[in-house]
Amino acid sequence: MVKYMLNHQLDLMFQALSDPSRRSMVERLCRGPASVSELAKPLAMSLPAVVQHLQVLEKSGLVSTSKQGRTRTCQIEPVALRTAEQWITERRTSWERKLDRLGDFLEEER
Amino acid sequence: MVKYMLNHQLDLMFQALSDPSRRSMVERLCRGPASVSELAKPLAMSLPAVVQHLQVLEKSGLVSTSKQGRTRTCQIEPVALRTAEQWITERRTSWERKLDRLGDFLEEER
Repeated sequence: MVKYMLNHQLDLMFQALSDPSRRSMVERLCRGPASVSELAKPLAMSLPAVVQHLQVLEKSGLVSTSKQGRTRTCQIEPVALRTAEQWITERRTSWERKLDRLGDFLEEER
Repeated sequence: MVKYMLNHQLDLMFQALSDPSRRSMVERLCRGPASVSELAKPLAMSLPAVVQHLQVLEKSGLVSTSKQGRTRTCQIEPVALRTAEQWITERRTSWERKLDRLGDFLEEER
């Protein structure tokens, strides 16, 4: 069940990161929290479009938002970002270990 | 232009990684090259469906394939995997630096 949930979270996170506007929103939020309008400012799109991208990011767990009065503040969720990173890192290091073993084997064969 | 191409490649790579079957294919290929039927064996899907997923991975640059006789061999492209990883790592470390600076600031304020 835990594995299924992690798998599903990875689906949503990589899906969220597959769009350049959403990546630029993640990039902005890694420099600190921002309101929705601050997030929208550098993007050439309507506010509703920004909100839609924000919902994808929120659903993936990469971003959380909280509302105070009329302002919604968005912030990055570093643990989720780390989860996506770790999945790739583990695959890459497994490939590098494989390559090291192959190197050792060829060295011994000489 | 280079930035646009990298951005587009990131779109395709994260999109490719957003599916659990494609992630398990990447996982398998990180342990060494495999034929299409070897890749298909642990997956509960038809061969044409596997080929379709493989095409998404190939288009993203994460996997390359070569044909010898009737056998198509698939292998991981570690540089592409590293590009996707690096994008996340850079964002995460930028967030951590921000947090460190905040910590220093609060320390000085005391």
